[in-house]
Amino acid sequence: MTKFLSDNAAAVHPKVWEAMRAADEADNPYDGDALSAQLDERFTDLLGRECAGLWVATGTAANCLALATLCQPHGAVVCHEEAHIEVDEGGAPGFYLHGAKLMLCPDGHGAQGAKLTPEGIAAFIDPIRDDVHQVQPHAIAITQATEYGRSYTPDELAALSAFARERGLGLHMDGARFANSAAFLGGSAKDASRGVDSLAFGFIKNGAMNAEAVVLFDPAQADMVKYRRKRAGHLQCKGRYLAAQILAMLDGDLWLANARHANAAAQDIASGCAQRLMHRVEANELFVTLSPAEREALRAQGFEFYDWGADAARFVTAWNTRAEDASALSKAIAAL
Amino acid sequence: MTKFLSDNAAAVHPKVWEAMRAADEADNPYDGDALSAQLDERFTDLLGRECAGLWVATGTAANCLALATLCQPHGAVVCHEEAHIEVDEGGAPGFYLHGAKLMLCPDGHGAQGAKLTPEGIAAFIDPIRDDVHQVQPHAIAITQATEYGRSYTPDELAALSAFARERGLGLHMDGARFANSAAFLGGSAKDASRGVDSLAFGFIKNGAMNAEAVVLFDPAQADMVKYRRKRAGHLQCKGRYLAAQILAMLDGDLWLANARHANAAAQDIASGCAQRLMHRVEANELFVTLSPAEREALRAQGFEFYDWGADAARFVTAWNTRAEDASALSKAIAAL
Amino acid sequence: MTKFLSDNAAAVHPKVWEAMRAADEADNPYDGDALSAQLDERFTDLLGRECAGLWVATGTAANCLALATLCQPHGAVVCHEEAHIEVDEGGAPGFYLHGAKLMLCPDGHGAQGAKLTPEGIAAFIDPIRDDVHQVQPHAIAITQATEYGRSYTPDELAALSAFARERGLGLHMDGARFANSAAFLGGSAKDASRGVDSLAFGFIKNGAMNAEAVVLFDPAQADMVKYRRKRAGHLQCKGRYLAAQILAMLDGDLWLANARHANAAAQDIASGCAQRLMHRVEANELFVTLSPAEREALRAQGFEFYDWGADAARFVTAWNTRAEDASALSKAIAAL
Amino acid sequence: MTKFLSDNAAAVHPKVWEAMRAADEADNPYDGDALSAQLDERFTDLLGRECAGLWVATGTAANCLALATLCQPHGAVVCHEEAHIEVDEGGAPGFYLHGAKLMLCPDGHGAQGAKLTPEGIAAFIDPIRDDVHQVQPHAIAITQATEYGRSYTPDELAALSAFARERGLGLHMDGARFANSAAFLGGSAKDASRGVDSLAFGFIKNGAMNAEAVVLFDPAQADMVKYRRKRAGHLQCKGRYLAAQILAMLDGDLWLANARHANAAAQDIASGCAQRLMHRVEANELFVTLSPAEREALRAQGFEFYDWGADAARFVTAWNTRAEDASALSKAIAAL
Repeated sequence: MTKFLSDNAAAVHPKVWEAMRAADEADNPYDGDALSAQLDERFTDLLGRECAGLWVATGTAANCLALATLCQPHGAVVCHEEAHIEVDEGGAPGFYLHGAKLMLCPDGHGAQGAKLTPEGIAAFIDPIRDDVHQVQPHAIAITQATEYGRSYTPDELAALSAFARERGLGLHMDGARFANSAAFLGGSAKDASRGVDSLAFGFIKNGAMNAEAVVLFDPAQADMVKYRRKRAGHLQCKGRYLAAQILAMLDGDLWLANARHANAAAQDIASGCAQRLMHRVEANELFVTLSPAEREALRAQGFEFYDWGADAARFVTAWNTRAEDASALSKAIAAL
Repeated sequence: MTKFLSDNAAAVHPKVWEAMRAADEADNPYDGDALSAQLDERFTDLLGRECAGLWVATGTAANCLALATLCQPHGAVVCHEEAHIEVDEGGAPGFYLHGAKLMLCPDGHGAQGAKLTPEGIAAFIDPIRDDVHQVQPHAIAITQATEYGRSYTPDELAALSAFARERGLGLHMDGARFANSAAFLGGSAKDASRGVDSLAFGFIKNGAMNAEAVVLFDPAQADMVKYRRKRAGHLQCKGRYLAAQILAMLDGDLWLANARHANAAAQDIASGCAQRLMHRVEANELFVTLSPAEREALRAQGFEFYDWGADAARFVTAWNTRAEDASALSKAIAAL
Repeated sequence: MTKFLSDNAAAVHPKVWEAMRAADEADNPYDGDALSAQLDERFTDLLGRECAGLWVATGTAANCLALATLCQPHGAVVCHEEAHIEVDEGGAPGFYLHGAKLMLCPDGHGAQGAKLTPEGIAAFIDPIRDDVHQVQPHAIAITQATEYGRSYTPDELAALSAFARERGLGLHMDGARFANSAAFLGGSAKDASRGVDSLAFGFIKNGAMNAEAVVLFDPAQADMVKYRRKRAGHLQCKGRYLAAQILAMLDGDLWLANARHANAAAQDIASGCAQRLMHRVEANELFVTLSPAEREALRAQGFEFYDWGADAARFVTAWNTRAEDASALSKAIAAL
Repeated sequence: MTKFLSDNAAAVHPKVWEAMRAADEADNPYDGDALSAQLDERFTDLLGRECAGLWVATGTAANCLALATLCQPHGAVVCHEEAHIEVDEGGAPGFYLHGAKLMLCPDGHGAQGAKLTPEGIAAFIDPIRDDVHQVQPHAIAITQATEYGRSYTPDELAALSAFARERGLGLHMDGARFANSAAFLGGSAKDASRGVDSLAFGFIKNGAMNAEAVVLFDPAQADMVKYRRKRAGHLQCKGRYLAAQILAMLDGDLWLANARHANAAAQDIASGCAQRLMHRVEANELFVTLSPAEREALRAQGFEFYDWGADAARFVTAWNTRAEDASALSKAIAAL
């Protein structure tokens, strides 16, 4: 069986294991340990802007803790109508943001593949009456890479950031697969996060066990997230094991190497099904037009993957996808 | 340096590490894996009542998810005035219970050491007017072992449970150190959790890394907690690593052996300071009257611990406290 | 100036004034007075089912208090995508339901004019995966009359009710203009509320000042709403003035007479613009295709109303709309 | 029967009735009418500081809307342990502040009669550890007049305000009986509200029907309250009737005349029971030591009032308490 179901259940990278074991000796509890203490500086170096980096155990928590600093309970977060925070987080934004709304922006206005654009957002929010009867947008949330495996370029991010600032909106980036986008865009985490106010920097899908980072570029936000993380039951007492995971991923740019590996596998698969691609492959996900019979044929050959509606499938590669498996899948699709 | 600060930052037990490593192979994400699937049955066996057992990463989350099933947002949870959920969880109950209140019951009516009694609770809640202007209690939360290291006996639990039922209140047990109480009471997890509606079964302080269990004895509660766990960002995608920790702790009653070890160390220390004990030692914590000068003297000998107010100190033993260290501390206090 | 802007700012009916004045003598505060005490029985008589009737000051509060009894914080309420609770209540459901979602069902499957049908709802909610990652529907909210002035027939309500029960969903009716629907359907409040679990029975648009009723057909719901009303700051200490308004409206079926008057005015206007009507007129609202020039022409004749998008207008009649004004408007539109 | 139960169910003042009737003509809905438009200026004049004045129907809503602007959901409001917001508002602060805590400061440090002092608050909050495990205070709430009928002098307010500013805390005043304190202090609303960030200015107990004012001295707060008022279902569509009540109370200082009348009645009663007073009478409430037999004797003479614990009673006068009734009560107590 060769799994292309998702990267979210992949094994933990050996170097992450190693770093966790090395953290075994007792240290201060919560985030008072020597490893957690390094995170702010490490993320500041990596992202090229002064910031705070806090570990949490899930991307859902990372996204929601950040969003709660950008959107008041009576406001709304504009996101794509298929955004993960809307579709697959069990209503977590409603909980963490105390009832704030998600406003579901559709594709259009030059945008596709779940990417938002200033023009698209403007067309979506401009009809909102500026009165107290209608919920007002307070922030924008984008996903890097998007739910369809697309990546925002630094220029696109700069335009969104300028638009957000002009409208007085916060800008958050859900980076569950941020590493894959950064790798696709050339390897700069700074470029891939240009202009955002907060970033949920994902490591779990990329080789960690259960540590993501909430990155906040505003000290006041960071302070609030510290309190809210505790309040949400996300301040683990043996937090050093989470810090260790993140540091292992940052050391020697393991995060980037892992993402490049996954992306390369995705490109290899893409090469075998160019005509069938529903979206450009700009990270490690492929959405491929495949009839039920074709899907059955692939499964008969041992490939595992999710259906995507009636006539397509989704394939996801991971840091540990074997090159030969990707190649085999590529050929199998080409041969259909 | 010999640490008696807390058990909350102790190393992870080797068997837990082993089980986590063994879980490395990809399986279904979230709680769909083969390890998570065993938890309900394992806890049912251990606790002697049909129940569901769900992993979460912290005791705060475990407590609050359970309490939210027992108390409506407009109600209150009665707890001891020094209960951890009130004092040290950053307001998490207010968040998870959507603004419900904690009602802070003081010692008295035969109760001490942060233990609640039916008489004490009755005296506390009976003056509440039965009208909509006053928040009404919906549930009771007790801590096993208490914040002062005392253990509720099965008879005491049965009395509390009967009282709760009579008053229409839910009964939750914060079991951050449940294993230590069970060990103290003779080793039966069933006895140590008699009559409660829900239990936060702690493993982290007892040798795990970041896995506690929420145990629910009512299927409807369990169903709600599943949705709420996701909504709170506590459904980890690689949940099998948490299930593995819990199963390792349950296998061969490692949880009990670890707790017995810690308790024995505590008793050893207690033997050296019987006159100084503020509370009976019924788990793995000691509250010891010590002047500032005495505390300084102990610290000069390399012992680490927290002050407890102006004239006392708290010592906590752990699964990995060395017998010789406990013994040395015992003698050092005796020699003061 | 002849106002057809809305019925929501109309004067208070003389009999309501009279009843309020008669309530001036001191009585028990909150809802302990002799007038409030009559409401349960009066609504039970009127609606033909045992129920509790509680006053609140706004329809928003009435809707949200009722919905909070039918939908848990982690669930969702299915409503029409243009439902007032979604579009014009400032996010109140998110507040009162502690972050629960509104799921916005579009027209289709035989439904139009913002009316929901079992088929339409089924098509909308069936794709929701039955897992914890997706928010699950807990309740349905319909509006009687709908946001486009349509009325649900008793048969349609029975079908929705049966569907809701089959799916385990609660069914709430936003009755801001319930009286107008009941009048349109023949005058039976019982028929117009068939099968619902809760009803926000509107009086304000129909001649009261600031009293609506939340009607609950389940005593447990009613009990919860009593606590929640207080908690929401909606339990007025001089509540007898609100009870007085409602009783005045119920006495001699003033509510029905007022609604019939408004409906008749609406029908009169409709008679002048049958070809232009976007929706059937089944209450006291008209949505009429009118070009900008035509709207300008009407305004020049002294008619006040709201634009409805680029090429239409909305006209609303009220309990005190003068027959000659309705007639004049009807003729003016016909003459365009 | 002569009622000294409370001022909260008193009749509506004739001038308030008059103003409400005069508001009957249709105007813009919600707070867009000509009366509501006057409130900011009127309160600015009265209170001597630029402010916004918004009507709501209850003091609970007024307090909670204001507090929600001063305290984040993860913070706490320090109030007296017998504060109305804690004891008698059904948990409304937990709802409006999204789970924030009330921290219950006891008497002491020179304070009594439910009055808070900088010293008392400092002694209360200084032991709170400055870490994320403990909820941090964000704001202070005081009651003018206090729950025991005491009034803060301008100097005391200035000291509290300076303390709050120094500690970075907001300062809110629950002014359910603000008029009575202002009257007691000499008649200046400005002095009686010195230094607070927000004020719930009560009119209902003083002759209005169901209109209180939330007064905000910071425009950003005011803006937030506008959205939150709508979200809480407190933006009435016929808001002009509430504005009319408030304007009637402000016109010709009716609010002050009414409060002076009630206070005078209270002083008259006090003159008959000086030795029995538990608290100084600085507004319109009296707490009087009276044995059960004495209370029975008074009730036998037709006086109605609430017991206050086992050996005391509470008497409240109102704007419409008849002088002869107060005098009779005074004599009756003196004669016991």
